[in-house]
Amino acid sequence: MLRTNLNRTLIRSIQRFTSSLPSYQTLKLTYPQPHVVLVELNRPTKLNAINKHLFDDLKTCFEHLNTERTCRAIVLTGAGRTFTTGIDLKYLSTFATGDVAQIDDIARKALHLRRFIHETQASFRAIDKCEKPIIAAVYGHCLGAAIDLLSCCDIRYSSRETIFSIKEVDMGIAADISTLQILPKMITNHSLFRELVYTARAFKIDEAQQLGLISQVFDTREAVIDAAICLASTIASKSPVAVQGSKINLNYARDHTIEENFNFACTWNSSMLLSEDIVKNVLASTEKNSRDSSNK
Amino acid sequence: MLRTNLNRTLIRSIQRFTSSLPSYQTLKLTYPQPHVVLVELNRPTKLNAINKHLFDDLKTCFEHLNTERTCRAIVLTGAGRTFTTGIDLKYLSTFATGDVAQIDDIARKALHLRRFIHETQASFRAIDKCEKPIIAAVYGHCLGAAIDLLSCCDIRYSSRETIFSIKEVDMGIAADISTLQILPKMITNHSLFRELVYTARAFKIDEAQQLGLISQVFDTREAVIDAAICLASTIASKSPVAVQGSKINLNYARDHTIEENFNFACTWNSSMLLSEDIVKNVLASTEKNSRDSSNK
Amino acid sequence: MLRTNLNRTLIRSIQRFTSSLPSYQTLKLTYPQPHVVLVELNRPTKLNAINKHLFDDLKTCFEHLNTERTCRAIVLTGAGRTFTTGIDLKYLSTFATGDVAQIDDIARKALHLRRFIHETQASFRAIDKCEKPIIAAVYGHCLGAAIDLLSCCDIRYSSRETIFSIKEVDMGIAADISTLQILPKMITNHSLFRELVYTARAFKIDEAQQLGLISQVFDTREAVIDAAICLASTIASKSPVAVQGSKINLNYARDHTIEENFNFACTWNSSMLLSEDIVKNVLASTEKNSRDSSNK
Amino acid sequence: MLRTNLNRTLIRSIQRFTSSLPSYQTLKLTYPQPHVVLVELNRPTKLNAINKHLFDDLKTCFEHLNTERTCRAIVLTGAGRTFTTGIDLKYLSTFATGDVAQIDDIARKALHLRRFIHETQASFRAIDKCEKPIIAAVYGHCLGAAIDLLSCCDIRYSSRETIFSIKEVDMGIAADISTLQILPKMITNHSLFRELVYTARAFKIDEAQQLGLISQVFDTREAVIDAAICLASTIASKSPVAVQGSKINLNYARDHTIEENFNFACTWNSSMLLSEDIVKNVLASTEKNSRDSSNK
Amino acid sequence: MLRTNLNRTLIRSIQRFTSSLPSYQTLKLTYPQPHVVLVELNRPTKLNAINKHLFDDLKTCFEHLNTERTCRAIVLTGAGRTFTTGIDLKYLSTFATGDVAQIDDIARKALHLRRFIHETQASFRAIDKCEKPIIAAVYGHCLGAAIDLLSCCDIRYSSRETIFSIKEVDMGIAADISTLQILPKMITNHSLFRELVYTARAFKIDEAQQLGLISQVFDTREAVIDAAICLASTIASKSPVAVQGSKINLNYARDHTIEENFNFACTWNSSMLLSEDIVKNVLASTEKNSRDSSNK
Amino acid sequence: MLRTNLNRTLIRSIQRFTSSLPSYQTLKLTYPQPHVVLVELNRPTKLNAINKHLFDDLKTCFEHLNTERTCRAIVLTGAGRTFTTGIDLKYLSTFATGDVAQIDDIARKALHLRRFIHETQASFRAIDKCEKPIIAAVYGHCLGAAIDLLSCCDIRYSSRETIFSIKEVDMGIAADISTLQILPKMITNHSLFRELVYTARAFKIDEAQQLGLISQVFDTREAVIDAAICLASTIASKSPVAVQGSKINLNYARDHTIEENFNFACTWNSSMLLSEDIVKNVLASTEKNSRDSSNK
Repeated sequence: MLRTNLNRTLIRSIQRFTSSLPSYQTLKLTYPQPHVVLVELNRPTKLNAINKHLFDDLKTCFEHLNTERTCRAIVLTGAGRTFTTGIDLKYLSTFATGDVAQIDDIARKALHLRRFIHETQASFRAIDKCEKPIIAAVYGHCLGAAIDLLSCCDIRYSSRETIFSIKEVDMGIAADISTLQILPKMITNHSLFRELVYTARAFKIDEAQQLGLISQVFDTREAVIDAAICLASTIASKSPVAVQGSKINLNYARDHTIEENFNFACTWNSSMLLSEDIVKNVLASTEKNSRDSSNK
Repeated sequence: MLRTNLNRTLIRSIQRFTSSLPSYQTLKLTYPQPHVVLVELNRPTKLNAINKHLFDDLKTCFEHLNTERTCRAIVLTGAGRTFTTGIDLKYLSTFATGDVAQIDDIARKALHLRRFIHETQASFRAIDKCEKPIIAAVYGHCLGAAIDLLSCCDIRYSSRETIFSIKEVDMGIAADISTLQILPKMITNHSLFRELVYTARAFKIDEAQQLGLISQVFDTREAVIDAAICLASTIASKSPVAVQGSKINLNYARDHTIEENFNFACTWNSSMLLSEDIVKNVLASTEKNSRDSSNK
Repeated sequence: MLRTNLNRTLIRSIQRFTSSLPSYQTLKLTYPQPHVVLVELNRPTKLNAINKHLFDDLKTCFEHLNTERTCRAIVLTGAGRTFTTGIDLKYLSTFATGDVAQIDDIARKALHLRRFIHETQASFRAIDKCEKPIIAAVYGHCLGAAIDLLSCCDIRYSSRETIFSIKEVDMGIAADISTLQILPKMITNHSLFRELVYTARAFKIDEAQQLGLISQVFDTREAVIDAAICLASTIASKSPVAVQGSKINLNYARDHTIEENFNFACTWNSSMLLSEDIVKNVLASTEKNSRDSSNK
Repeated sequence: MLRTNLNRTLIRSIQRFTSSLPSYQTLKLTYPQPHVVLVELNRPTKLNAINKHLFDDLKTCFEHLNTERTCRAIVLTGAGRTFTTGIDLKYLSTFATGDVAQIDDIARKALHLRRFIHETQASFRAIDKCEKPIIAAVYGHCLGAAIDLLSCCDIRYSSRETIFSIKEVDMGIAADISTLQILPKMITNHSLFRELVYTARAFKIDEAQQLGLISQVFDTREAVIDAAICLASTIASKSPVAVQGSKINLNYARDHTIEENFNFACTWNSSMLLSEDIVKNVLASTEKNSRDSSNK
Repeated sequence: MLRTNLNRTLIRSIQRFTSSLPSYQTLKLTYPQPHVVLVELNRPTKLNAINKHLFDDLKTCFEHLNTERTCRAIVLTGAGRTFTTGIDLKYLSTFATGDVAQIDDIARKALHLRRFIHETQASFRAIDKCEKPIIAAVYGHCLGAAIDLLSCCDIRYSSRETIFSIKEVDMGIAADISTLQILPKMITNHSLFRELVYTARAFKIDEAQQLGLISQVFDTREAVIDAAICLASTIASKSPVAVQGSKINLNYARDHTIEENFNFACTWNSSMLLSEDIVKNVLASTEKNSRDSSNK
Repeated sequence: MLRTNLNRTLIRSIQRFTSSLPSYQTLKLTYPQPHVVLVELNRPTKLNAINKHLFDDLKTCFEHLNTERTCRAIVLTGAGRTFTTGIDLKYLSTFATGDVAQIDDIARKALHLRRFIHETQASFRAIDKCEKPIIAAVYGHCLGAAIDLLSCCDIRYSSRETIFSIKEVDMGIAADISTLQILPKMITNHSLFRELVYTARAFKIDEAQQLGLISQVFDTREAVIDAAICLASTIASKSPVAVQGSKINLNYARDHTIEENFNFACTWNSSMLLSEDIVKNVLASTEKNSRDSSNK
């Protein structure tokens, strides 16, 4: 595994970083490489099904990583034999028996439920709003809310045997925590996408690639995680101001007109170009270029 | 053909449904499967060219199907040897000779024409706004307004030999009833798309797939229609609240920011999650899951 | 080369057109075909690196072509052995030594810099806003600002050996003159795109096609330029009102909702359909059709 | 009354126009002046309460007037002793007993209700979308849906004794047919407005003026209707292309950015400025001006 | 004071409610009336200057009240002799000495500062997003951030002697926590508003009313608070589903097109109209009406 | 006049500034106070009617002032006995006789005219986009395009006798250079506004104030200009970074949602708060405050 390539100094700094990370009940966080945080969904005996705890942990975790200065790139994956089978049905069934069920009037029930859904959405919104690049490494089963999770990541790698399904319609639900909200902005084949949404049928890696859901495929779980860490490590070696600035501008562009994108980029770079780093980079490149061209 | 698979009871209920459908001069409507309406453009001797009648019938038909509770999925195809060759030129030539031609002042002429175009658009807008999934099954020729029609469908299947062309530029017109208005939101290869728009040249199934215009190809007209009906039938077997809710949310997402998509989905589901169906689905799945997992 | 196909009359009219074109220090403009303007980046000894002059010339040139009635389609390419290696680093380094460097207070520096960036953006905005179709013919190196340039073109052809790179992150910058502002609206594979943005790594034609950046590939520089001119010539032979109207509607559609697209198209065509050309086209087609159908 | 000022020829043309108007069960339409249509809510014994019939008639009527070329300005008022007391409660109570009440599952009920509300909204949308100026002349009671009606008019005149109330909150409803959707875009005092919305209390002409709801006040029902007809007559004497173009641009501006407003106006006027009328107006004014200035 | 009007039962229920409220270091919360929460800025010795604590408390408090079902209307005021003099300068000066000051590179400093500003904004965003009506009762000084606070309230009452100032420009800052972000959407006189923003000069109640900032004026601090509580109490007596639904729709309307407002209201009411309350209200009114009309 | 208050040093610096200003054929520019530029429409014998020259000069002038660092506030007024009577009719009549008249086909004519209107709009867009505060001082006649000019200014002062008219409808035109595009975003009384637009009737200062068009009234031309200069001088004495930042944020807010306004302000201030000025201002105020409070 890639981790063996690290020398001792790195290993120590990684261990120090890792020990400073907050701990979560349903997530496992480590630094496999400097500045790279590996986030693992950690309910392997439940096939990483997403319950209230996991929703809360994801929110807290990604809000923390967003401001944690030692974190420059994130790999999101699962622990155990599958990425995640989606929302935990026990959690969902609390609708039928919990607080909401006690309210008589439908309108008040709906108003209450709206605030509850808003909270659930807030969890995945925190992932989408995290300004550090996130690489998803998926394998095994990738069902229901798992597709919502993928929608919140920048780059998506998968193992060859992964089974996907947008299964909300089979539960009688219109997906409300990213699949129908974010994914349409980055999907490639809308005709295929709508077929998968309306039928909830399983699909494999070839259709996942045709959709633009997955950009690279690997043979095993280990291979896909290693490749994701390796890519994260490359990204972490770049100027964090440039990488995060690029992500902030790309996320902005999903929702704005071209005119607004230019206006935002202009305002953004009016402070960012004052960085000493750029001056150094540019001057260094200029010198290198003049040396290079004098050799030609 | 697939229809042979139906048992007697189904056939009877289908016949009863079909006989209750309104009839149209230029469209043929049937129920090939329960809850699935097959809409055929029905001017085969004119190659299904779209005239004033057909525009009006499409509007009335899809507004009706939108609220018709026995209809859960729609297949749109043509009668005869070709899907449609686009707008009927006789209809278009009424501009040169009809009411508009009588108005002298250019500004009043333009104001009048604007209201006329608005009406024509309203026909295809009714298809796009229909909240039931629509599967297009195309074959033969698919020219001009045929591409606009495709733009209003959720899922697009084609036979292998179909000839496509975005031919408006060859008539001296910028397409105004969906091709330039909706298709850019779901097309894959914009560079190829603009080449096809600006040149009006014919293209075949390989470029149609490269564009993301067609997601699946079949050998014959019969095969493509059967596959579309089969898919429609699968969709019709799902919870209509979930399927239509998904379509409403997907259409909303084409035009809104991610923040707004979440807000809309939250409001949407605050009433939809009160459905008894979901509670039953979830409880059933939970039980099944616990049985399944106890077997492992 | 394709140019040999032209007869004498055409050659003369082309020469006359060409001699009437304004001349630029860093751009070369010619009419290889009637109504087709070939714009070449013309700093071949600097690998067409984009400096202040080139930015200014691009703005002036495309604002001129936008209103120049003899121009109906544009091919944008480079002179010499490479398309362009991006922004001229000598130009960029003036930040570190020029006017801005003299301002002490950071806020005033940022306000000044903002106006400077706005001017740079205005150059590429002029290309994007040009209402005549632009075909990019790229080859050699296509780095940094070259990708921004491609983002402003309608159709993108490339030679097989082109090396691409979105290299801004390597300079410590978030790209601000089209790559992060326009390209996300027409790219196919967002997962791959973000990988290329965050890593700044080089990529080749296969990934450029996978991205939807390039729609057609040719073996040599000559072949790609000839194909682009040939396509431009076909486009130039169509009704300019229909082609430019289509481009204006397509560019409008990038930034607007479907409802707004229909409203705009309706207003647009309310004057455009008054064109005599359409009447003639339609009447001609109607006659031809009735002749054709009487032969069948 | 103003009508007595008309000479015989006018009276005849008005009578001819009026007799050509469609008739409605719950609306009364007349031409009090050439090109001016007076629309009266016509259920005086029910205080003009708005039932299903009136909703339908308003939709049909304003869609007709929108394209009726003899109509250039509209006055909307009531018949009898009050403008309108709002929605007819008998109509509203059909929710509790009608079709919707038969559906068991809440989600399907909500989906059905959504289509029903959409239809009700379509009635008032037709008024708001009518491209001819509409002047409301109100008096007596102006309650609930009456405020929604006012929101759809261009200009609002009132008699001095009118009683207003945004009374939806008292019915347990959030207003959904214009008051909360359009009025906030044209109201002056948002703090006062929210007080009136949340408390549903009655208010009088002074607060109605402070809100910007009413721009002019008259002593009696007759005076307000006469003033409205007189204003409508002035408007009808202006170039209809200019007046309707102004309304279309003003309505567009409510919902768009300044940049988009300019773009729309530019496209709009590119055909409208081709009017012969303008040329004549301008040339006439120029001559007049030069005569005038030579006298000074 | 108004509180004396309450009978014993009410007083007890109010005391019980109040004792169940969370306590805050810099805010004082009480229930002066059932379902009405009175929020007092509670740093009277510091003239209620807003420091880090107060920002944090406001966020927590309004997020809590948003979901607290016993709260139906909120009055926001100050403790002591003045509403608030704005942001605490000691807090602002931590920029010059705190964490940010330690970062060398300007771009990283700006990226860090951006996350810090985002947090400060989140405090006032929580007030603006609270779905219960908020009535501001101001008196004494209302400076700088006090205007931002007012921008987040639904209804604004003031005592006669209040001194206002949008004083950010005098600190060298463009206001970033509501005054320039929300207020322009509800202000009446933009010419006067810009004068006040650019000059930072003090203004009194007459200009505050001319601006539309204040809708009602009272003689003393006690009078304004009593009037606000009285209004809150009236609002709290209405259907909370209707009041909160109205606020949610009004806030939605600030940022959306009319078409979108209708679509949202339609979706919103599709569940809200299922409330039993409405049915009862309507049926009750219908009966009452028929009794009333039979008496006339 | 206010100018007499200046001491010699100021007068000299003003003279030096003034002599460095570019000169224009139809505009007169001076520095009546340091950092305040007085722009006078300067065709007094033509009542400052706006012709092609004046359109071009306004564009060049305001683009220059936008980046001219000695200019911090602008007063826009007229020379001679009237502000401006609007567009020069001789200029408008070139439509009937000029280039456009030569084009036969209506569609090409419209396409050409569209580019022409776009250029005219660009002139007034330059005023609206100028990031320095602009105070209009109007008097005499303020007709047609004069209202468009006012729409582009931040603050509007008038003399008591000014005659206003939105006279475009009388020319057969829908106003396209600001009145219908910008003014609706800052007008107070929409009912009155639409009456004035549709009738083109003259109105006086009382209705101009009721509209929110004018915020302060003075007795004479001299008084209004002096007051405007005095206000401009006060604004010019404030931090230019804060004033221009406020204007940029206010103009942004006209066209964006509240969420976007906060996001923009956050990004904006992330560099602006790094200004040393703020630190000094804050520290100075803190000291002063502690001195003040120790005296109380």
